[in-house]
Amino acid sequence: MKEFFDVLDIASVLEMKDRFATMGAETVSLDRAQGRVLGADIIAPVDIPGFNRATMDGFAVQAASTYGASESNPAYLEVVGSVTMGQRPDAAVGPGQAARIATGGMLPAGADSVVMVEHADSLDEATIEVYRSVAPGQHMVARDEDVAQGRLLLRKGRCLRAQEIGLLAASGCRKITVYRRPTVGIISTGDEVVPMDADPSPGQIRDINTHTLAALVQEAGARAVAYGIVGDRYDDLLLTCKNALQASDMVLISGGSSVGMRDLTLDAIEALDRSRILVHGISIRPGKPTILAQCGAKPFWGLPGHVTSAMVVFMVVVRPFLDHIAGRRSHSPNRIRARLNRNLASVQGRIDFVRVRLVEVDGDFNAEPILGQSGLIHTMVEADGLVAIDMNSEGLDQGALVDVMII
Amino acid sequence: MKEFFDVLDIASVLEMKDRFATMGAETVSLDRAQGRVLGADIIAPVDIPGFNRATMDGFAVQAASTYGASESNPAYLEVVGSVTMGQRPDAAVGPGQAARIATGGMLPAGADSVVMVEHADSLDEATIEVYRSVAPGQHMVARDEDVAQGRLLLRKGRCLRAQEIGLLAASGCRKITVYRRPTVGIISTGDEVVPMDADPSPGQIRDINTHTLAALVQEAGARAVAYGIVGDRYDDLLLTCKNALQASDMVLISGGSSVGMRDLTLDAIEALDRSRILVHGISIRPGKPTILAQCGAKPFWGLPGHVTSAMVVFMVVVRPFLDHIAGRRSHSPNRIRARLNRNLASVQGRIDFVRVRLVEVDGDFNAEPILGQSGLIHTMVEADGLVAIDMNSEGLDQGALVDVMII
Repeated sequence: MKEFFDVLDIASVLEMKDRFATMGAETVSLDRAQGRVLGADIIAPVDIPGFNRATMDGFAVQAASTYGASESNPAYLEVVGSVTMGQRPDAAVGPGQAARIATGGMLPAGADSVVMVEHADSLDEATIEVYRSVAPGQHMVARDEDVAQGRLLLRKGRCLRAQEIGLLAASGCRKITVYRRPTVGIISTGDEVVPMDADPSPGQIRDINTHTLAALVQEAGARAVAYGIVGDRYDDLLLTCKNALQASDMVLISGGSSVGMRDLTLDAIEALDRSRILVHGISIRPGKPTILAQCGAKPFWGLPGHVTSAMVVFMVVVRPFLDHIAGRRSHSPNRIRARLNRNLASVQGRIDFVRVRLVEVDGDFNAEPILGQSGLIHTMVEADGLVAIDMNSEGLDQGALVDVMII
Repeated sequence: MKEFFDVLDIASVLEMKDRFATMGAETVSLDRAQGRVLGADIIAPVDIPGFNRATMDGFAVQAASTYGASESNPAYLEVVGSVTMGQRPDAAVGPGQAARIATGGMLPAGADSVVMVEHADSLDEATIEVYRSVAPGQHMVARDEDVAQGRLLLRKGRCLRAQEIGLLAASGCRKITVYRRPTVGIISTGDEVVPMDADPSPGQIRDINTHTLAALVQEAGARAVAYGIVGDRYDDLLLTCKNALQASDMVLISGGSSVGMRDLTLDAIEALDRSRILVHGISIRPGKPTILAQCGAKPFWGLPGHVTSAMVVFMVVVRPFLDHIAGRRSHSPNRIRARLNRNLASVQGRIDFVRVRLVEVDGDFNAEPILGQSGLIHTMVEADGLVAIDMNSEGLDQGALVDVMII
């Protein structure tokens, strides 16, 4: 068995992200931009809403015309016109004047506020009584109140949710510069592994890692390309690694679980063009036998064969690299504070990632550890998240508050 | 202005979900199943892993052959063969015997455990010394330890994440029964609204709601179909509503913001085939003027015109209905406990949904309210989540613990 290099802690591994370049940019139409990562800062091209806009039905006025108005002492205003929705009003509003306006209408020149329809009565066609005063700017949105032209609208690296899509629509941004989606090549290894649509003979198991890793890659917004299963033959392994590396921005090779297969995988990774092993062993559990190589500008990962180990390593180590390459700077918070419902032992010197189920109790969450070996996929299926037990901890006590990373 | 019916509280509205039917099922291949909702219970078709499987490199033995073994008093075992990966072993292992095995290999008949290679030494080709005893079942996974054939594998309504995809791959499930994705028709209204790729004249604004609502629908895993913008003309409105209703499983019509447009929208919804208004006003803010009608078996929503109001109503009211129709029973928890960083006033008798930014402070989250009218989309862009202030509350104090719904 090849010796591990110095096993590294996870923080040291994550610092290596910056060795790898971010994807180039491409342009997509707005209706394809959801979930993509903004590839350039966007400066607001226009004011939004673009004109002073009523937020209530009523009368556009100069606020000063209403000062002191009350039920017992109403202000009398001359109605000089009516604002048509979607059009610039003809009439201007001077002191002592008013124009009918509906929510969303454009305030006439001169008007600086809106009296709600509930606070006025029509005396005749041309006159209203106003029972309540308004302040300048009341019941309206100023022309640049939502967004001022020339301001930084959105920063590059922002992942575009529904609200960012809306902001871009409001700004008239039809074509959006986004980072290209990384392509991730996925290779499974092991003489005992058969495709999921094959019927395994005794001693054989179906390939799981190709499917779980592809799904995780897609959840991250990247593109997964599967290179199938390679057995215990060095030439095949090297050729598949080369093919995957050439066509991908990142490669994940998982398994085999045996020492022989692991050594062969390391040999193949080392033999790749401009390859340099950066990591061979991380002080986490599961996931210690993880390999990271830099092949030219691309990261090449050797992941453990056990399905749960491979998934956990992807979630806590690979995903931050993938997000870095994808240019993603913004993240929704995805950790929930919960109370551990039993003691958890741990070994110092490594971070243990424990799979937990979240159970709501009176509005709070309890975290229930799911026990089971890392080869068992049902433990991941039952899990809502992962809890990290710190390197320097000998374990956590029942009742401890823990951060659960949602998976 | 038409009177609101009795304004309903949000819980009463959400109870109406069960009036609407869940989508029918369809079959997709496993590689298309990620993010879909399982449409039928799945019973495990096979044991997983299907055979007793080593989880360490070493020697397959009968545990009893090692009892009492120690450094000073090793057990001597006869090596009767070597397990080839992916194949059923030829040799059986009897008392006092052992077979070489690698991680992932199939245990020979008779063996019930694995001695780690680190705890044994070869004396000659046919003999090993064992320095540590093992218990039955140690360093192996039993043939049905991950999944036992005939057990309920996954329950219908489960949304398929990477781990469920892996479990289905391991089980050889090539074709998966999932609920069909709902199609949601989206209509924008208002004479002042122009398409996002038009150049608005003074008094006009670009259509935002079509884009934000379509994005929210897609984030929910459903299909969005836009029916464009309809102005203040009843016949056009009714025709577009009819077309959308016929081709969709749910319809969202938003705006117009003016009272006239709102009344027209209500008239059109009431005129639809087998239409019954269930809700006209919900005691939430923003979002009070929300309409829900049942048109035959389908929900038809009238949403507020203000972009933020429409989004909040979608998130807190419409989404649960959409999930119900989509058959989705499982949810990742998406609320984070945080500490409010300022006082928030509220009015009794309605639930206020306040947009907040989450700021991490020493591992905890502070929730910073984002103030601004509900017509301003930048408030949603800056927000990480929503905090609900209860109906019976007059507000929340600085430092209060709140649940933030991530958006």
